[in-house]
Amino acid sequence: MPKVFIHEVGLRDGLQMESEIVPTGKKRDWALWLIESGVDVIQLGSFVHPKWVPQMADTDDLFFQLTDGKKQHGTIFSGLVLNEKGLERGLSCGVELFCMGVSASETHSQKNTRMSIEEALGRTIRMAKHVLSDKRKVQVSVQSAFGCGYEGLVPEENVLRIVETYLDSGLTSISLADTAGHADPNGVRRLFERVMGLSERIQVACHFHNNFGMALANCWAALQSGVTWFESSFGGLGGCPFTAVPGGNVCTEDLVHMFQRMRIGTSIELSRLIETATPTIPISLSIILNLE
Amino acid sequence: MPKVFIHEVGLRDGLQMESEIVPTGKKRDWALWLIESGVDVIQLGSFVHPKWVPQMADTDDLFFQLTDGKKQHGTIFSGLVLNEKGLERGLSCGVELFCMGVSASETHSQKNTRMSIEEALGRTIRMAKHVLSDKRKVQVSVQSAFGCGYEGLVPEENVLRIVETYLDSGLTSISLADTAGHADPNGVRRLFERVMGLSERIQVACHFHNNFGMALANCWAALQSGVTWFESSFGGLGGCPFTAVPGGNVCTEDLVHMFQRMRIGTSIELSRLIETATPTIPISLSIILNLE
Repeated sequence: MPKVFIHEVGLRDGLQMESEIVPTGKKRDWALWLIESGVDVIQLGSFVHPKWVPQMADTDDLFFQLTDGKKQHGTIFSGLVLNEKGLERGLSCGVELFCMGVSASETHSQKNTRMSIEEALGRTIRMAKHVLSDKRKVQVSVQSAFGCGYEGLVPEENVLRIVETYLDSGLTSISLADTAGHADPNGVRRLFERVMGLSERIQVACHFHNNFGMALANCWAALQSGVTWFESSFGGLGGCPFTAVPGGNVCTEDLVHMFQRMRIGTSIELSRLIETATPTIPISLSIILNLE
Repeated sequence: MPKVFIHEVGLRDGLQMESEIVPTGKKRDWALWLIESGVDVIQLGSFVHPKWVPQMADTDDLFFQLTDGKKQHGTIFSGLVLNEKGLERGLSCGVELFCMGVSASETHSQKNTRMSIEEALGRTIRMAKHVLSDKRKVQVSVQSAFGCGYEGLVPEENVLRIVETYLDSGLTSISLADTAGHADPNGVRRLFERVMGLSERIQVACHFHNNFGMALANCWAALQSGVTWFESSFGGLGGCPFTAVPGGNVCTEDLVHMFQRMRIGTSIELSRLIETATPTIPISLSIILNLE
């Protein structure tokens, strides 16, 4: 029975898409429910300037609240950092796994970070090494790995070159993200097989959206290539605010259901997860928050 | 570029689920639009007693209307028959491809046909041979091939035994249907690989529902096993009225989009298909019909 790992990103990738700002106490409740359900990693938020993403302004506070006292569970807390300032903030609170990355599309990189891929890559590697020197975990990613909302096709070679640079820098935990929702299962299998072939030490994660219903097809294709880490959002929340994405993130409870139906063991209690996710599925967050 | 074939079943499997009865003229319009989009086969309806499925009472009439005069297109018209009476009706109008089948679950077979699998299989084979002797096409199916709403797990051996009996009777066009919405992509690949291994002459179709978001994952898994015929419903309409299905049929436009994104050639004009399907997607049929 192969082991897969669920990296729940709804509190970050999900909520950053919503115009409504979710109160810290509500995020904390959701995080506690997700911990109870047994997900492997929860991304509590990102460390970005509140001017740009006000939904994430309380990320530090959320980390402090959830890491106050002795941990009674095995869930790892991750946080997304985009720059050195964010890294400093993350190092000052309880981030256990740092997530950071670059885009494989030059246009997307410029629009998202005002840097070329090359510059962003250099900075990401420097930040990632800083994390490792602090004895914390780091996962580096390639965004727009399966296509770009601005450029369209992204050559597989762009992605492979970035992954090779990561590997050369000793960074072996690598995520490929379909930021723009362009992936199809044939392409997913092909690219992941090439990436998996680059190193035996590599540990690969995937991040898909439900672009035209293909979320689970893409995840299964990734699984076929040997991918064991899956990033997903409870209730299928999410998407990237800086690109035209036709679907939210792959829905955690659908993903876990598919795995468990295939008797692929996850550490997750599906019924608990569904209880957490249910209120967020059919209606927008603003309605939920007003109802409560 | 592999060729796949789309068998559009929305007018039958989709509409039989709806409480509203769609007027024949409206069905005819939809069929004409589907023809324009270039789907390979359209299932216009089923030949069942109007007392049981009043939504299909006009199937003969629809066939007469659409096959009146010289055919100006390459789309094949199929019809579902459940018994000899239906077969006679189908032979009297323009059915080009007859679809019929048995369940792999004893309980489902009894509830659906009041016959054992064995009895239903004998009758289906007799009817299929009758069709072949009339120089028409026939496709035989195995329903509940991936699980049963009543019995749960359906052993793969049940399905293989039925398929072997079909093959022994000279019936090589065979569809496996996930009637109850239990399929997962690992199981799909495993079963189809075993079925494809039974004969080189076999031509296999799949019929999936969007059970918990797995429709396209299951279709892609089937494609991986060599399946080239896909049954789907425009707008994702459908499901079986006699079992607890948690999702409609796989949505034709999503399926065609996935194929075309993978550069798998279909004969279908996706934009035309989406135009046809769009009004049926977000709202129930009764609302559409009242709007028009």
